[in-house]
Parts: sequence; structure tokens; C-alpha cells
Amino acid sequence: MLKIPDHQVAGHEAGAGKLGPLVDDSGRFYKPLQSGKRGAEEAAFYESFSSNTKVPEHIRKYFPTYYGTKVMKASTGVEHPHIVLQDLASTRVNPSIMDIKIGSRTWGPEASDAYIAKCLERDRESTSVTLGFRLSGLQVFINNESGFYKPNRDFIHKIGPDDVRVILRKFVSSNPSEKLDTAPDCSLASSVYGGTNGILAQLLELKAWFEDQTIYHFNACSVLFMFEKGLVLNGASSNAEVKLIDFAHVTEGKGVIDHNFLGGLCSLIKFISDILETMGHTATNGQLEV
Amino acid sequence: MLKIPDHQVAGHEAGAGKLGPLVDDSGRFYKPLQSGKRGAEEAAFYESFSSNTKVPEHIRKYFPTYYGTKVMKASTGVEHPHIVLQDLASTRVNPSIMDIKIGSRTWGPEASDAYIAKCLERDRESTSVTLGFRLSGLQVFINNESGFYKPNRDFIHKIGPDDVRVILRKFVSSNPSEKLDTAPDCSLASSVYGGTNGILAQLLELKAWFEDQTIYHFNACSVLFMFEKGLVLNGASSNAEVKLIDFAHVTEGKGVIDHNFLGGLCSLIKFISDILETMGHTATNGQLEV
Repeated sequence: MLKIPDHQVAGHEAGAGKLGPLVDDSGRFYKPLQSGKRGAEEAAFYESFSSNTKVPEHIRKYFPTYYGTKVMKASTGVEHPHIVLQDLASTRVNPSIMDIKIGSRTWGPEASDAYIAKCLERDRESTSVTLGFRLSGLQVFINNESGFYKPNRDFIHKIGPDDVRVILRKFVSSNPSEKLDTAPDCSLASSVYGGTNGILAQLLELKAWFEDQTIYHFNACSVLFMFEKGLVLNGASSNAEVKLIDFAHVTEGKGVIDHNFLGGLCSLIKFISDILETMGHTATNGQLEV
Repeated sequence: MLKIPDHQVAGHEAGAGKLGPLVDDSGRFYKPLQSGKRGAEEAAFYESFSSNTKVPEHIRKYFPTYYGTKVMKASTGVEHPHIVLQDLASTRVNPSIMDIKIGSRTWGPEASDAYIAKCLERDRESTSVTLGFRLSGLQVFINNESGFYKPNRDFIHKIGPDDVRVILRKFVSSNPSEKLDTAPDCSLASSVYGGTNGILAQLLELKAWFEDQTIYHFNACSVLFMFEKGLVLNGASSNAEVKLIDFAHVTEGKGVIDHNFLGGLCSLIKFISDILETMGHTATNGQLEV
């Protein structure tokens, strides 16, 4: 039983005559191979990565499990090759999800002039150049009645650096309302961003690897943040998880670290640290429980 | 007594009718204000930096001391405003020096389209995009008879990633000959790059600051490596020093870390670590003393 994913926040969406990802009920995610060499290169990355013994075990958990490729009936109704991956959202109930494209530059050195010009324009218009990353999409679970806070893509594509700061706070707040001028309460910050299993700790583990690894350059990749508010409210762990996705533009590292990804990752880490630090300071002042 | 500096490896050089830096015999370096807003912005940076209480003391040592600005007879013979700085080479005998421009991007987000296009072209042609840094110039002391290994600028502007790796080895070798295919012996690597006061330790101290500081973005800045071979051969410390220079394109950080500088710095750190690691491995094999 194939269906359109419930919790997609960015990327091409399947629809009538439109090619997009599908999921099944066994926890697999079917991503149609993109046109041109992108699709082939993404499949090649997964093949390379899944068999590369230089990738440490503690790093593999940040990547979706890869099950190969499969030609199958696509969302358009016609046969198309797909990359078969782990469905990251399949075991989650009402997951809050954020997709963040990392790097101040989303093109690789070998790209064509035309492609570089197109990417550079988007990088300059978005927060990629200023922040070293940009938001590609998000959904934040509010409650069963209200459902999700899920700003539309046009809105997300236009936001500036200050909005990003607010949205990173909204993501862990009980009041992620539509208005950017409402102060988010960050009531879930310590459970989701903080702690030994929180998002910050995972980002720092990835950072340590990126300071050393020279195998791949992750051009235009995203990190995905996921957690479940319901679990936190029940006093359980938030099940916060960081994953890397979207590998259509990965290139060989050739003995050089991915300084573009690393720089953007460090910038994102600083944003998350700042939120936790603000909470800590506020807590010290006795105004908020963290 | 003003004169042209003996040990300049990059940037505009003073000459007949040409504006360039001068030094005096009291250890001061006079840098002519560049045309347009660059000169004014570099002076403004030094003013801001020298009085900024948020800059930690242990970080100030990585910047030249600033003594203000002065209108004086320039190298062209006519009056011109200069930035008065500490002459970093004044107390050194036969210093080996390398100037490395940090960042895969040498333009700031507020630059004009024309300026961005010009910088982007240079960044792509050089190793800036691939490595996150590029060499701007160097001199390596050989001995009194042979003087310095000092490749000319045309050569330096054309070198690729592999050449950079070789030159970073030549810089700490007793045989920095003209040919890139000669294996550098790296005999000075552990004294210059390694150790608690070596260049790697200093770069790591800077890195820790760049992971946190959101005051300035150091667009198109260079790090300077300096040491004295004579001291090492006499069994003394190499007096290895890292300095940041060239602040004509510094912009405000606005609460965001300088992810572009940090990424490039981490890439450079990896290159230096790799050299030390190779030496360590070689030493373990008993083939070389480090």
C-alpha cells in the first residue's frame, strides 16, 4: 500500500501527475530519481556511503538507511526508478519537523556557470549567505485540535535572519502561532535542543566528524530536526533526532574537509546554543522553568 | 627614517610613484589608506576593535597593535593618510612568512553585484572555493647564501589544491627548492606547526573564538604565519606566530558567527594537522626525527 507521506515539509510533493515521494506501511520511503544526473548521483552517493568502511558507526545513525533502488509505479502512475530509504517519520506520532539546508553556498565547484548563477541568486536572496543555512520547511505540532503550525513555502522562502531566529524558538514552543511578533515561550527547548540526547548534542557529534572527514562534500544537503511533543508532555524523552538528507549534489572530498557545510553547521549550532543559553539565564532569574 | 618593508609577501608594494606600506626603525608599519571606502572601513575596524571590550585579551595578540591614523608623506612623495600599526617583522631575523587569505568567499553580503562577480571569479579560479582559503604570498628562509624561497605572484595565483599542500610542507622544510615535485622534508614541522606554542595551537585558539564570536565578519582577511629558522637551528623556540591582517572588508557580525572564515580556518587546520600526523607516523616508522 503506497501513499503520499503525511509529514513532508520540503521538496517535490507527489500529486496528480506530479512526481514525488511515496511511503509504504512497512516503513520505507520511495524517492523518485531526480531528472538528469542528479538522481543517478544521489543513488551513487547512497551506494558509496552505505558500503564505505571509513564512515564511523556512530555517524551512520545520522543518515537514513538505504535499501537500494527500485523501478516501480510512481505517483504519476507510470514506471520510474526510485531510491528506497527508511521512512524517517513512520514510527512517529505527530512529529514536529524542520528541514534546514546547510551551507552558505549550495553549489559544488564543478557545477556549470548557469547552475552556479541560479544557486548564487537563491543563496543571496535567502539566509544562506548571511547565516550559512536556510530553512526549507517546517511543521510544529500544536495539539490535536489545532494540528500543526506549518507556514507555507512562499513565506519561508522570504524570511530573513531575525525570522529564522524566531522560528528556531517557535519550533520548541507551546505557542508556535502564525505571527512572527509573538514571543515564543521555548518551553520545550531544554527537552528538545538540550540534554545528552538532544539536538545540540547530536549536532556537536556531527560537527566533530565534519572537522575531520574529507570523504564527501555535502553540497546543498539538509539537516532534519524531528521530535514528538506528545512524548515530552507525557514526561518521556522528546525522541529528538537529527538526520542528514538530500544528496543529489554530493561531491568527493578529495582530502579536503567540507568547510562550507561545517561553517554553516557551526552557525546553526550557535543559534541553538544561544536559545539554550537564554533559557538558562532566564531560569537563573527565576522567571521560567527549564 | 621611513623605508619600504624588507619582508612583504603580498599586497600593494611601494615603489617609484606607487603607493605602498612603509616602516620606520621604531617598529611601526604605515599602511596607506586604500581608495574609496575600503581605507576608511579598515581604519574604522581598527578603531572599533582596539576599544571593543568584548574581545578577550588572549585573542588580541593575534592582531597587530593599532596606533591610529596619520597623514604623512607617502611612498609616492605626496601626503596621504596612513593606518599606523605594529611592524610584525621588525624584531625578526630572516623570518619565514606566509600570507593565507581565509574563506571560500571573499565578498561580504552587502557588496555590489559587480564586486561580487569579480571576487567570485577569483575565488573560483584560485583554491578559495575548493579549500576555503588561498595562498597570497610567502617567503621561506633557506640560508644566508641562498636567501629566501619566494615564488612570484603569478605562480602563486595559479596554484591548485595539491600545490597548496606541498607549499605548506615546503614552508617548514630545509629544502624549499623551486620545484614543486621535490619532496619537502618537513624537518621544522614539529617546531613550527606543532607544540604548545606552535602554529596549530594558535589556530585552534582562534577557532574556539570564531565558534563563538558574532561581533565581526572578517571577509577577505588573511592569516599570517611567521617563524625564524635560525632560532630553531640554534635549538631555541621557532617563535612561530599567527596574526590576522587586512581588514578592509570586515562587516558587522549582527549576532551570527563568521561561518565563512571559520570553515576556511578549519580546513587550514586540517591541512596543518595532516602534515603533523604524517610526521608522527613517519617517526613511528623510525624513518625521520620529528
